[in-house]
Amino acid sequence: VRVSPAGDAASTAARADDVERALRALGLWTRRHVSDSGAIAFAISPSSTRVPAAELAAIPHVAELFGLESPHPLLDAMARTVTLAPGTSRAAVLGGAAPKALLAGPCSVESEAQIHRLAHAVKAAGATVLRGGVWKPRTSPRGFQGLGAPALRWLTDAAHAAGLAVVTEVTSERDVEAAAALVDALQVGARTMHASALLREVGRTGRPVLLKRAFSASLEEWLLAAEALLLAGAPAVLLCERGVRGPDGGARNVLDVGAIAVCAAAHGLPVLVDPSHAAGRRDIVCALAAAGLAAGACGAVVEVHDRPGEAQSDAPQALDPAVLQAWWLERNLR
Amino acid sequence: VRVSPAGDAASTAARADDVERALRALGLWTRRHVSDSGAIAFAISPSSTRVPAAELAAIPHVAELFGLESPHPLLDAMARTVTLAPGTSRAAVLGGAAPKALLAGPCSVESEAQIHRLAHAVKAAGATVLRGGVWKPRTSPRGFQGLGAPALRWLTDAAHAAGLAVVTEVTSERDVEAAAALVDALQVGARTMHASALLREVGRTGRPVLLKRAFSASLEEWLLAAEALLLAGAPAVLLCERGVRGPDGGARNVLDVGAIAVCAAAHGLPVLVDPSHAAGRRDIVCALAAAGLAAGACGAVVEVHDRPGEAQSDAPQALDPAVLQAWWLERNLR
Amino acid sequence: VRVSPAGDAASTAARADDVERALRALGLWTRRHVSDSGAIAFAISPSSTRVPAAELAAIPHVAELFGLESPHPLLDAMARTVTLAPGTSRAAVLGGAAPKALLAGPCSVESEAQIHRLAHAVKAAGATVLRGGVWKPRTSPRGFQGLGAPALRWLTDAAHAAGLAVVTEVTSERDVEAAAALVDALQVGARTMHASALLREVGRTGRPVLLKRAFSASLEEWLLAAEALLLAGAPAVLLCERGVRGPDGGARNVLDVGAIAVCAAAHGLPVLVDPSHAAGRRDIVCALAAAGLAAGACGAVVEVHDRPGEAQSDAPQALDPAVLQAWWLERNLR
Amino acid sequence: VRVSPAGDAASTAARADDVERALRALGLWTRRHVSDSGAIAFAISPSSTRVPAAELAAIPHVAELFGLESPHPLLDAMARTVTLAPGTSRAAVLGGAAPKALLAGPCSVESEAQIHRLAHAVKAAGATVLRGGVWKPRTSPRGFQGLGAPALRWLTDAAHAAGLAVVTEVTSERDVEAAAALVDALQVGARTMHASALLREVGRTGRPVLLKRAFSASLEEWLLAAEALLLAGAPAVLLCERGVRGPDGGARNVLDVGAIAVCAAAHGLPVLVDPSHAAGRRDIVCALAAAGLAAGACGAVVEVHDRPGEAQSDAPQALDPAVLQAWWLERNLR
Repeated sequence: VRVSPAGDAASTAARADDVERALRALGLWTRRHVSDSGAIAFAISPSSTRVPAAELAAIPHVAELFGLESPHPLLDAMARTVTLAPGTSRAAVLGGAAPKALLAGPCSVESEAQIHRLAHAVKAAGATVLRGGVWKPRTSPRGFQGLGAPALRWLTDAAHAAGLAVVTEVTSERDVEAAAALVDALQVGARTMHASALLREVGRTGRPVLLKRAFSASLEEWLLAAEALLLAGAPAVLLCERGVRGPDGGARNVLDVGAIAVCAAAHGLPVLVDPSHAAGRRDIVCALAAAGLAAGACGAVVEVHDRPGEAQSDAPQALDPAVLQAWWLERNLR
Repeated sequence: VRVSPAGDAASTAARADDVERALRALGLWTRRHVSDSGAIAFAISPSSTRVPAAELAAIPHVAELFGLESPHPLLDAMARTVTLAPGTSRAAVLGGAAPKALLAGPCSVESEAQIHRLAHAVKAAGATVLRGGVWKPRTSPRGFQGLGAPALRWLTDAAHAAGLAVVTEVTSERDVEAAAALVDALQVGARTMHASALLREVGRTGRPVLLKRAFSASLEEWLLAAEALLLAGAPAVLLCERGVRGPDGGARNVLDVGAIAVCAAAHGLPVLVDPSHAAGRRDIVCALAAAGLAAGACGAVVEVHDRPGEAQSDAPQALDPAVLQAWWLERNLR
Repeated sequence: VRVSPAGDAASTAARADDVERALRALGLWTRRHVSDSGAIAFAISPSSTRVPAAELAAIPHVAELFGLESPHPLLDAMARTVTLAPGTSRAAVLGGAAPKALLAGPCSVESEAQIHRLAHAVKAAGATVLRGGVWKPRTSPRGFQGLGAPALRWLTDAAHAAGLAVVTEVTSERDVEAAAALVDALQVGARTMHASALLREVGRTGRPVLLKRAFSASLEEWLLAAEALLLAGAPAVLLCERGVRGPDGGARNVLDVGAIAVCAAAHGLPVLVDPSHAAGRRDIVCALAAAGLAAGACGAVVEVHDRPGEAQSDAPQALDPAVLQAWWLERNLR
Repeated sequence: VRVSPAGDAASTAARADDVERALRALGLWTRRHVSDSGAIAFAISPSSTRVPAAELAAIPHVAELFGLESPHPLLDAMARTVTLAPGTSRAAVLGGAAPKALLAGPCSVESEAQIHRLAHAVKAAGATVLRGGVWKPRTSPRGFQGLGAPALRWLTDAAHAAGLAVVTEVTSERDVEAAAALVDALQVGARTMHASALLREVGRTGRPVLLKRAFSASLEEWLLAAEALLLAGAPAVLLCERGVRGPDGGARNVLDVGAIAVCAAAHGLPVLVDPSHAAGRRDIVCALAAAGLAAGACGAVVEVHDRPGEAQSDAPQALDPAVLQAWWLERNLR
């Protein structure tokens, strides 16, 4: 924001003071820059309240407004409502004016019986989308890596049988096409949000994408990963916040509800909350889901397991479907 | 958790597998340790679901449970409900089974008229506690430092006139006694949470304390600061989460709703949410307040200003009292 | 570390005090755990001085030592010296007792002439390995993405002509095989350190790997990514620290010289320092390279460009080869 | 940086491209801003290479340069060399062209005999300044808090006897004056860097100050704390980097050598490295000290203890004075 110069330095500074007060009153953090010739301009922090340019231009003594071109024009123009499996009996609408959605399922698909059992349980709990992992990215290369293609078939069969849309994570470029043929949305996980080749491959399939935020990604990096998916051909991206790294607050990660609020309130984007990976502990999963929804998330993605003693991954954060059902019911009754 | 040894290594390992499954099913993250003689023990991550020791002891083949002594026994034993200004017409109850509370006021007390005006506005909005700064800790030594002792008198007069309990931050050991004589609770800010001499001085006054979490404090450091206050004589501590440092998510700080959930749900402690400093931008303050309350906070501390163009500090995050009132009303009607 | 019990609680506690003092004297951070029956054990922080188990076992009253199984046995057993292009005239030895090495080259290979010019310049500067990007992972999908396969051929030709070993980053599983056929080592970048499918593909080629640490990876995650490469077939992994996220200290990232020291001094692993991406600014690249080498790095990976005005990526951090040469010469003369 | 407009938009954009290339060639990260009327300006990241304004102004088509006023003019103007105890036989010169300095001593002064023994040991090791704590800020309120005023007298006596300048940390406003009367420099610790009242009190004494960086302070916050000391009357501030919070790299904190390089190389400020608190483990203290000095630190502050089994605080990171002596000697012989 450049201030129109007055006749002398003192008057210019007085004008600048007025402009500064007006900018702050609108909710903007500013830094004053002065040129050698005495001209004054204000830089506005990107972490400020979103204000339409017209309101800034209308401030007296504002001579010129400089703006960054948005680095994610496709995302800015994307439809705010996303429908998974449109035109089918399992169609699920997310974002926009749609009611808050529940997406649930096990961390890993462990057997055909397990996923059918859980699909019906999460349907009963109120979920509209089934999630389940068949290719598991693990920190240790010796951890359980998922059951792969056969499990993908069990997963989609179970979803169809229960009348749920279905999403699974892909971790290898080589699995993308086969997965896209079966599921209603592809997931890109936190560990691969920065993997540009995978993003391109996933985008090319033309499937909607659920995009988790990387462990320490900035908002801009996350939105640019979404832009990369759209640029490659994805029709829609559902952002999903799952916690970032910060000081130890007793949970596994720090759920960034501010990023949810900025995406949802300031940008109008559809954003989900994943309370399970943020919490890492069963006893606060519902509290974090509620916090994410209160901040503006259009839905919650929750890991469940009915026999956590048998779970092959992430058992300590898996919720009993009955607990999820009770919480969701109680929440929606209020 | 030490596993009771079986006759041979294979049987001991099988027992340990059973114990591990049982621990994970209870919501615990474990790491297996093996001794030279083949004994097996599991270390449990402190960021796990809270489980009573008796449930662990009841797991078959658990030979012995080792536990850390709590480093904050006074905090563990503290009453869960805190009453400010007890026995007065402005008494405010926080925590425990009390309804969610609203604490509000300006960042800085700027004039007698301003604080009286705002006290009545926040009372009308539904607040039970007035907050206002008279000694301002600022990042820059040339920033506005507050109006000091006279402003403290205006603040308490305004609170009494409006029927509100009142809290203010103290930043110097030398001001603690005078402040304690006038306000219903003293605030220790994020910048001084680690300042042990100030904590001792504040605790000694016997006033309840509102303790903000430092910029990057771990949960344990925060709880130990509360313990230091109690040890010095404070009757009660209200924890207050105001955002920690993490990757840039578009807000000023990352509001750690997980820490709120752990304090509230797992430990039963009274914890407040400060959405204003977490957001740093007016447009998401209500969303973050809602998120914190959903996570388990017993109240929200919100900065307001009715003429933000005249505010001497933190204008871009100050909410109009009318906006606060509308949000709080709507929230409580649901 | 379990303390052998004495006849009564007081004697056991006194023994435990002795054990605790002995552990701390050895450089270990401990937490005391007490069982219901009064037994005492100490948990040792993994961020403690490395001490051989025998020294712990020799402490009086230590009854039993429990240890974690290493999650990265292949890495623990890996040879400490890595030779790139062994048996050729461009063989380069890194790690172990070899002299500190210089790896240098442009961020991107931009033309055949450019890379030949720079290969000779970095050879003259004292480098033994040429680095250059042909597939560029960029934060923005509209940024320069590299020139791909043709540029890979120019890169390797230039390295051979100058008598340098050569390394390039692969970002897609589909490029790995072709790249492995031409270069002496494959690089996995910070953005894909967590991409398990890519790690497997890279490991399978049997080429040594230069593995950068992800933006916020813990030491354990980084070492487990190295383990994944070795498990898939990589003969050797060169770790490379390039800065992590932390508070803004004026450089682009926080170069974690502690992680370098722990890898090098405590674990004996070959670890490189990438001062260019840590600095993000030309004026402190040499200072950070020197710091990394002083902390124990076996070599430095430095981005250079002789015409930074024409560079397609990362120009502000590229060093003039003449500056690099002067610094390296002066450093080695001391 | 505002670009001078050409006749039409295309020519202006071409000019802007030239300016952008020139800025990047100088080592600057830029973001392009365009006004509604088509004017173009570049914002320059503060984490860029430091370039004199005259070089920017000389770039063709640069119409106007806007700059931030420095928020720390006193620090910018401060002398680069600091002498502790000037005019005495224990005078110690730090910064500027002075040789790298060693400051050493115990975490806590534990007895008169101990501090005399250690003062002579660190003098023999090559130190010119004795450090020792008498008021200890601890995370737990039940930890050892130091021996206070009597220990301060032992400390200064020991320093005088050994011919060393002496520095101690003050944690309470009430101790500042007494401490200033006895020591050659006052230390403000990481826990109180943000405690503005303490900074003012310390500055007022007119003593030089050793100012540690807070756990997660940004560079700007740290420099503004230094400015606050100078504004209150301190004649000189020695900055001291001791590690910041980041992902777990195996050391206690992440030593920010980039911040050291920026302070030393780009700003010419005297900055010390504290490898002991960064490491938290004895086995990498010397490596981190070497890294900090290589990055540009003018000296190292090292914790030592000759009987770590008896140390009341921080034993696991305390170095044996003989080890320090050997390292320092070897370092200075190169």
